[in-house]
Order: sequence, then C-alpha cells, then structure tokens
Amino acid sequence: MKASFKSILTLTTLFFISACDADNSTDSVWRKLELNNTVLLTLPHGKVVIELAPQFSPKHVAQFSELTKQGFYDGTQFYRVIDGFVAQAGPDTDSEKDKSVPLLAMESQWKTDKKWSFTPVQKQDLFAQQTGFKDSFAIAYQAGEKQGSGKAWLTHCPGTLAMARGNQADSASSHFYFVIGQAPRYLDDIMTIFGRVVYGMQHVQAIQRTEVIEGEYAVDHRDFTKITSMQLMSDVPKAEQIHIEVENTESSAFAERLVKRRKRDADFFYKKPPPVLDVCQVPIRSRLVK
Amino acid sequence: MKASFKSILTLTTLFFISACDADNSTDSVWRKLELNNTVLLTLPHGKVVIELAPQFSPKHVAQFSELTKQGFYDGTQFYRVIDGFVAQAGPDTDSEKDKSVPLLAMESQWKTDKKWSFTPVQKQDLFAQQTGFKDSFAIAYQAGEKQGSGKAWLTHCPGTLAMARGNQADSASSHFYFVIGQAPRYLDDIMTIFGRVVYGMQHVQAIQRTEVIEGEYAVDHRDFTKITSMQLMSDVPKAEQIHIEVENTESSAFAERLVKRRKRDADFFYKKPPPVLDVCQVPIRSRLVK
Repeated sequence: MKASFKSILTLTTLFFISACDADNSTDSVWRKLELNNTVLLTLPHGKVVIELAPQFSPKHVAQFSELTKQGFYDGTQFYRVIDGFVAQAGPDTDSEKDKSVPLLAMESQWKTDKKWSFTPVQKQDLFAQQTGFKDSFAIAYQAGEKQGSGKAWLTHCPGTLAMARGNQADSASSHFYFVIGQAPRYLDDIMTIFGRVVYGMQHVQAIQRTEVIEGEYAVDHRDFTKITSMQLMSDVPKAEQIHIEVENTESSAFAERLVKRRKRDADFFYKKPPPVLDVCQVPIRSRLVK
Repeated sequence: MKASFKSILTLTTLFFISACDADNSTDSVWRKLELNNTVLLTLPHGKVVIELAPQFSPKHVAQFSELTKQGFYDGTQFYRVIDGFVAQAGPDTDSEKDKSVPLLAMESQWKTDKKWSFTPVQKQDLFAQQTGFKDSFAIAYQAGEKQGSGKAWLTHCPGTLAMARGNQADSASSHFYFVIGQAPRYLDDIMTIFGRVVYGMQHVQAIQRTEVIEGEYAVDHRDFTKITSMQLMSDVPKAEQIHIEVENTESSAFAERLVKRRKRDADFFYKKPPPVLDVCQVPIRSRLVK
C-alpha cells in the first residue's frame, strides 16, 4: 500500500545496478573519493564523512585541512545549532586558539570560460538564472554578456559545509557550519562553501540544538555536542577508514536520472507535478566500498 | 466543504480571542493552539507537538484524531525513514489493524472565492504561481481565469505532516509521514497534508533512519523508532500538557517580518542576496505558554 515511494526507489536501484560497473572511464556512474580530500568527523553518536572541494575553494580547504591535521577541532563544540537551519562549531570565541587562526579571503564564486561545463538542472530558479551540478556539488550559474564570461557558485543545500564569518566578507577563519534544514539559498555567494556531507548526515541532524523557543528551558552548554575528533581520512588507521564513492554527476547515467526524476513517470504520480527540479531536492547518492 | 472550513475558522478565532492573555485583537502576533486540535507525539527520545489543519483537510484530521484517541498509533513504528526526505509510520502493512481503517478521499486543494485571503510570500515560485501563508501553514496559490475562481493547496515544507497512500489518489488511511529534508514540493497537491510540527522537530529529525546506502549494514527492524504514544493534547493529563502559541501569519507584525527577511538589511549581508523568499525557508515561530 504505502509502498509507492518504495516502488520508485526500487526502479531507481535497478537502474543503478544495471548501469554501475565501476570502471574508470569518465562516464563512470560512481566516483571514488580521494582519502586526502575526505574528512572523518567523529561525533559521540556516530561517524560523518565529508567531501572537500579544493577545486572551488582551495584556500578554505587548505586551512581547514591543516587545522584538521593538527587536531584543532578535537574537543570543540557545536555551539550554535538551530533546528532547520545550521549546526555551527569552532573554538571558544575570542580564545587564544580562536585568534591564532589566519583570516581567509572569500572564495564564494568563480568565473567560467568557454571550456567550462556542468550538468544543468533548472532554469529560472528562484535564486539563480540556472542551477546544476559540478563534481557532485550543487551549483548556481549566471551567464555573462559575452560567451564564456559567466560565473558560478556553490549553493547552500542541506549537508553543505561552509565557513562561518563575521560581518566582513573576508573574516572567516576556523568556525564552520553544516546546513541542516531547508536550503538557506540567500547565503549563496556571500559565504564560502568548501565541502559537503557524503555519509552520516543523520548524525549531523542529531547534533544537540543550542537554541530553544521562547518559554523553553535553555540548553546547558555542557550538553552541547562535542567533536570527538576531526581527521583527514588519509590520517585514519587503515582498519577504520571509510571509503566512499559518490555519484558522478558528469555521467550520462546521472543526466538520465535527472530526466526521469523530472518526468515523475511512476504510477504513483496519478497527477503529474510540474516538470521542474529543485537542485537541493536531488539527492546525490553515496555508497560504501571496501 | 467551504462552509465547514469557515465555521471552523470562526470557532478558532473565538477561541483565541478568549484565550490570548496579552492581546485580544485579530492582529495579535501570537495565536494559541486549541488543545483538541493539537497532538502530542511521545517518542522514546523526546516530545513532539503537532498542529492539525481541519480547516484544510477535515476528513483526514477527523480520521487521524479518531485513531489517535483510540491509541491506534501507540507502539507502531517509523518503518520508512529516509534521511533528507521523510519519516513514515503506521501499523504493519496489510495487518488486520492496517486493513481495519477506512480509505480517505484526497483533500489536497481547495477553491478560493473573492473573500478568501492569505499572506503572500513569493510570486513565480518554481512550483506555483504564488506562495504564501494561511493560518501559519505554507501554501501555494493559483489564480483562476475569473476573479475569485482560484485554488490553493498546502505545500511540503520541512515539518509537514501528511498522509501516505498507495498509487491510487484516494487510498490513504492511517500511515503518515513527516517531511525531514529539503521540501519535496513535487508531492504538493497529490498528497493530503493535514498538520505540521510546532514543537520538538529536532526529535523528529532524530528518528532512526531505516534506509541505508549501498554497502552499509541494514538497520534491524527492532531498532526502528517506536511511537510511545500519540494523544490529542486535550486528552493529556493537565500537568503534562504542552501549551503552544504560534505566529499569527495573518498579523501585520508577520507581514513586516516578511518584508525584513526579504530585504536582508543586516550588516552581515555585505552583498545583498536576491530579494526573494522560499516559503519553506521562512520559519514560523512557536513559543511555550503556561
């Protein structure tokens, strides 16, 4: 009966099984994450894996990776967690540790040339001329006046990892946040996104909220969720490494999946929804590999 | 249906006029929820409060309320929980209990006449001509060819409560789901939404996921989250009742808040985002009252 979503899932799964011989061609359905570009965030209640995005935000990734290598985040806490919005962590504000980290210049968008390409998803999205995917990250794109003079930027979908900052553009350092609710797209292009959750998002969702509604008891700061450890996956002992492959959003299989998803052909859709896709409502699949 | 919808609205209005301590005007910032229109869902890890929407989906609310009164949901489990999508619960599929419940006709949209009004949020949203709020619920609206011949429907924002169904439109009965991720707006107008979470959404987010990625161990069904109890708040012993007020989305204060939110005037926005609002990214505040 209420298995109607299930039938869709099954169809999709079958589609994948038939298509996913993990070859090394550029049209491969899956893309294996490099261990030195992957982060293992261990929380008291579960493990989370993050894919970093040095191709989009190289300086933020370099600083975050360096801090991670140093064990900078171990023992820090998620001190600003608002349900439906963000889970933000970092060292104690204005502590010596906090002030020891250099500030970063914004890396919120990049120019695109004639050779640049992406997998388009939706035109005339609320916040952008065009949305799409690039390297499994959700992006927005704006064409320029001349061909090859456009710009693109990463968008704030759920699971996005971005650096927090003060009021000044170039004031980010080590504090970061995960998006845990409806995409706050108004933050696009004014924050630097530098990664995304590829495994264990349910554990990010289970981080202790720190903000409560009026009339509710405040949450004691001793109950805030602490980071057990943050490590580059390449620094994790082999037996504990988590190897992840993600959907290759540049593959023809993925493009076909977008077409199917937009069409909503399953019997369940007795009345057809509009043929549009919210780029943040297209899950990018991950899988565990040995 | 329209007539009963109006009479319910009138009753509601009378109720909060008599119940609101601070402000008796219809322009009151807060609206107190009626206890018999509010549900207390007790999970092993926390309490969740739901506002029902009899003015929009009277038959679904009536059936859900009746089942709730009978203790129908107590001990049932969340058997289909997909991170970033939905948490779905109900009795064992095809069990006697499951089959004992009458099927419901779809209540996914309603016609609007000249007197009907709502608080507008965004024109030319991806999925609708217009979005907005009505009675603190996110809605979509489509004008008709003649004035006063439009239609409206509730939208699938995070925290939405809707009835699951099979492939047929009129096949819902008792299985329900909460939206726990980016709004699956493609389900708008083909599912019956009949409530929303107004308190404890973090506990809904912490429900055990039942679907895992390829390569991951399956979750044992004995670990699925069970509903401790589902009660109408009016049936809960007084000392344990949770009294909630929510923002009155028909108030001038709320309209002002929308204007502010769209403007993004704070210094933090060193570069202005587009002046648009995603209706599902406008949190409706709740507060606890005694």
